[in-house]
Amino acid sequence: MKAFKTLLILILTIFSQANFAQTAEANRENEFKPSPVNQPGSNYPMVNAKGQVRTQISAPEAKLVQLDIGGVKYDMVKDEAGVWTGESAPQDVGFHYYQLNIDGASVPDPGSLYFYGANRWGSGIEVPSPDEDFFAMKNVPHGNVEQILFPSKSTNTSRRAYVYTPPGYGVNRQERYPVLYLQHGYGENETSWPNQGRANLIMDNLLAEGKIRPFIIVMTYGMTNEIEFGGLKDFDIKPFQTVLVDELIPYIDTNYRTKANKKHRAMAGLSMGAFETKLITLNKPEVFSHYALFSGGTYQPEELQDRAKPALVFISTGSKERPDAVKSAVSNLKKAGFNAVSYVSEETAHEFHTWRRSLYQLAPLLFKIEQ
Amino acid sequence: MKAFKTLLILILTIFSQANFAQTAEANRENEFKPSPVNQPGSNYPMVNAKGQVRTQISAPEAKLVQLDIGGVKYDMVKDEAGVWTGESAPQDVGFHYYQLNIDGASVPDPGSLYFYGANRWGSGIEVPSPDEDFFAMKNVPHGNVEQILFPSKSTNTSRRAYVYTPPGYGVNRQERYPVLYLQHGYGENETSWPNQGRANLIMDNLLAEGKIRPFIIVMTYGMTNEIEFGGLKDFDIKPFQTVLVDELIPYIDTNYRTKANKKHRAMAGLSMGAFETKLITLNKPEVFSHYALFSGGTYQPEELQDRAKPALVFISTGSKERPDAVKSAVSNLKKAGFNAVSYVSEETAHEFHTWRRSLYQLAPLLFKIEQ
Repeated sequence: MKAFKTLLILILTIFSQANFAQTAEANRENEFKPSPVNQPGSNYPMVNAKGQVRTQISAPEAKLVQLDIGGVKYDMVKDEAGVWTGESAPQDVGFHYYQLNIDGASVPDPGSLYFYGANRWGSGIEVPSPDEDFFAMKNVPHGNVEQILFPSKSTNTSRRAYVYTPPGYGVNRQERYPVLYLQHGYGENETSWPNQGRANLIMDNLLAEGKIRPFIIVMTYGMTNEIEFGGLKDFDIKPFQTVLVDELIPYIDTNYRTKANKKHRAMAGLSMGAFETKLITLNKPEVFSHYALFSGGTYQPEELQDRAKPALVFISTGSKERPDAVKSAVSNLKKAGFNAVSYVSEETAHEFHTWRRSLYQLAPLLFKIEQ
Repeated sequence: MKAFKTLLILILTIFSQANFAQTAEANRENEFKPSPVNQPGSNYPMVNAKGQVRTQISAPEAKLVQLDIGGVKYDMVKDEAGVWTGESAPQDVGFHYYQLNIDGASVPDPGSLYFYGANRWGSGIEVPSPDEDFFAMKNVPHGNVEQILFPSKSTNTSRRAYVYTPPGYGVNRQERYPVLYLQHGYGENETSWPNQGRANLIMDNLLAEGKIRPFIIVMTYGMTNEIEFGGLKDFDIKPFQTVLVDELIPYIDTNYRTKANKKHRAMAGLSMGAFETKLITLNKPEVFSHYALFSGGTYQPEELQDRAKPALVFISTGSKERPDAVKSAVSNLKKAGFNAVSYVSEETAHEFHTWRRSLYQLAPLLFKIEQ
């Protein structure tokens, strides 16, 4: 009887430990933690390892409060204190824009930081990703992100751009650097790459690991948002091309220690910024030597036939977009003798995580010539 | 009869013209225009010349929507389409934080840009002021505002600061510059001076008019917001003093072309940043030569007696704060032989317009030595 009892306890113990391990694993998956891009001191919004977003807001008198993310509105639930809490279905890894709906009013979540995208400053959330380390703030030397206001005669304005300079730029006072001109997409602006794009941290981390040589990145507004979405076919590239090529580039080459020539100048863009990159690199073969399109079109070999071959053509997309089109375009370019590279971001769609990864993949391929 | 009729018409005409002129004047006063710090493309919030704020939001299902500004909540009114519109009483000239209340939820107005103050990123509005030209974006050479992430051993973090460099900094590659360290107030952070404070535009305009000689401004987070408001007496300046004096200043002097000595180093701050400025300048007489307090305390002559006289002591306040205390403190300092200057911002209270004006008054008095 005693042996039986001991055996029973042993079995129960093993069973309960296994069960406990399963539960702990499930708990970890379900555990909600504050999003890393919250307002200082704010616990909500939260995310869990499955990619669900949970948020909370006090609205004692409201009839209906919804979490509006990824094109879906999730009803939230009110407690006795008038605080509403709600959760979304799992989202893709990486960064997403979202908002709250309070009795029909679309407003930013007061708990999150704000980002410019979808044509407004509004809420953003960061869903954990297996590779999030590459854009994390780490204890490494950091470059700077400088806001400049450059004169533009063609638009009769002072225009804003952000300039990433790599660590050591202020100290190495004789060194000159190549430059990447990097464009945002429709509904975004010149703040989108340095904020939600983490362009500076991606560069800092790559440099700290010795994976790239230092270069400057310039990000300005692509004048994309005044057209109606869907009116893309009527978009005229000339006004922005003039600002970029005739006004911004000379300003940068005067005010920064650049290697001011085609060999050391690249252009890249995402979505509509990719469309702009394609048009401008095709119109101005004498200005850029490296071309990169993220989630926005491809080059056909015949489009590049009137010129010296670009040093690099890079084309990327999310696996949930149209990876086959990108792969086949790059295959055609390679067959035609171009140095073309494709990249597909796994498990992501037309969002910033695809574009952060694209920049991370592109950077080591840029300016691989003797600098 | 005809003469009488003519006279009558004449009288009526004159009367109606006078009346029209009065009406036109009243209309101008009442006319609402979009605030200059709105989101791109947003007509609301608006302001008029009297300083009233009007805003609008669609919230078809809401029971009560309020405009919450200057400590007062103004009920808004719903139209048939479910759009709520409301107006405030006249506000002081200059910049104010505000928010909306939708059925009990405090949220940012989706129409405005967002600013860090009152311990959150939230809505801001700009009420017209007679002197708004001094911080306007003009067609003049512009300096840059650079985000740096500097290493801090004492806090084991990379810490953010913004560095204003004057126009020409990137071109005049041998020139060295004096530096002003400029602190925000409680509930604000290192973005507050470059955003709502317009520190860079104030400098650009002063430089364009030849009213000042160029210097650098450094703005970092004063570690003020972790304490409870009202817990000021328990505030320990040491952690921030270490970050500023032992970590940030050496980083700036290494990475920027500064005149790295006491004679060319100033410290100023607003509200709790003034309190920090006072503590640090008193603790570190060997580091700074110019001291400025905006809306936050004064120096007594006996507090400054253990040291070489500072080159300048500047103390300012809004006329709606405690101007007499500032004037009398400066009068005492002058009697004791200090180069002390007071400034009172007319018709403003404990808000950013007082501090923008204070910076505008302070800048020409700084570094008036042979540079």
